[in-house]
Amino acid sequence: MSDSIVTAKIGTLYGLGVGPGDPELITVKAYRIIRDTPVIAYPRKRMGDKSYALAIVETFIDTSRKEMVGLTFPMTRDAETLAREWNKTIATVYEYLKTGRDVAFVTEGDPMLYSTFIHMKRLMESLHPEVRVESVPGISSINASASRLGIPLADGDEIVAIVPATDDREQMRKALIEHDAVIFIKVAKVIDLMIDVLFELDLISKAAVVHKVTGQEERIYTDVASLRGSDLGYLTLMVVRK
Amino acid sequence: MSDSIVTAKIGTLYGLGVGPGDPELITVKAYRIIRDTPVIAYPRKRMGDKSYALAIVETFIDTSRKEMVGLTFPMTRDAETLAREWNKTIATVYEYLKTGRDVAFVTEGDPMLYSTFIHMKRLMESLHPEVRVESVPGISSINASASRLGIPLADGDEIVAIVPATDDREQMRKALIEHDAVIFIKVAKVIDLMIDVLFELDLISKAAVVHKVTGQEERIYTDVASLRGSDLGYLTLMVVRK
Repeated sequence: MSDSIVTAKIGTLYGLGVGPGDPELITVKAYRIIRDTPVIAYPRKRMGDKSYALAIVETFIDTSRKEMVGLTFPMTRDAETLAREWNKTIATVYEYLKTGRDVAFVTEGDPMLYSTFIHMKRLMESLHPEVRVESVPGISSINASASRLGIPLADGDEIVAIVPATDDREQMRKALIEHDAVIFIKVAKVIDLMIDVLFELDLISKAAVVHKVTGQEERIYTDVASLRGSDLGYLTLMVVRK
Repeated sequence: MSDSIVTAKIGTLYGLGVGPGDPELITVKAYRIIRDTPVIAYPRKRMGDKSYALAIVETFIDTSRKEMVGLTFPMTRDAETLAREWNKTIATVYEYLKTGRDVAFVTEGDPMLYSTFIHMKRLMESLHPEVRVESVPGISSINASASRLGIPLADGDEIVAIVPATDDREQMRKALIEHDAVIFIKVAKVIDLMIDVLFELDLISKAAVVHKVTGQEERIYTDVASLRGSDLGYLTLMVVRK
């Protein structure tokens, strides 16, 4: 064990997109980095729920031969708690980096699109500017949904928007009116409102919903009107293409 | 050679996203299908320019052991020529499928986002509904650019739009005003207009431009104002994040 030898070289922090759920949708590059990096950091889920990203990693490598670092991310909006917990997370990761070991933080989908890695990158670069941070793109659930649903996101001069669904009815209407296609992420909690808006705009037949796309629990819904009152759960998105 | 035996089974047409340029950004799934599929179709470029998608395939497999089918896509807006040329292309691909062989059509980026595969899928399904068509997502130049530039596309409740750049100045302004981040594809031909609009909205420092992202000829520009009058060429996009 040479862990205690502090080298002058600082490790690289990789943000690795491992794709939407199907392990085969990892890139060859992300696979290589997972294989070659001694330390794998992953988001530990609340309530014992297993991390998607970790499950994907486990299909490719023997994790008992790696330093596996489960990170907990604060789910609060309290600024003080957030800052304290995040600083602890960065300190944990930096402990490995400062001994010259690279750390691969694995993240579902793409690391630069609604990912925890965005904040980790920002904070690491601010607290430890000497650390090299590299993001490796992954297949996002948005691109994967288009393929699974058989719905093109955009063609020719079409404009597409990615919109986190909220209960701001006017904003949801506006997004649908002003774009050729819209992907509403996190749609489960406002599905009834979204169905109302789709009917108002005569777009209900143009919508489809997918849950945990390409994963083992994938569900595809093309009769969106029938979803009223449904509990669709996390990782559900809606594609609307005019 | 058993090519002349017509089987009852019809082959599957795959639309395979092979990523933005770096061969390592292909998915494991796309790699497996390229390896196992007897017929590889690829877009043949005009004027002897080699297809990106073909170059990526060639880094992974021995193409002399495959049936390689170069397809030419009409670049005209003349409806009659378009229809005739497209029908020929579909007929070429169907010749292989009807003998029970799978065909993998490889495409840069993601097959459901501004890709030739969108039209191929639509037309194949319309002319030969018995053909199974499967799209395999790929890393788009949009996701890859975010990683290479170190610019997150969206976080939290932010809204992001993908907009083909045109000389419609008001539409370009509106896109910037109404979204938290915008990716302008095909930006080269209107770069001066885009720079003007960015200055007007005081967003010039928030923009970055990338050409042939992750490819061997990749160019990254963070001083966008200096690009006025430049001939940036095809496959150039701009990311603006407020």
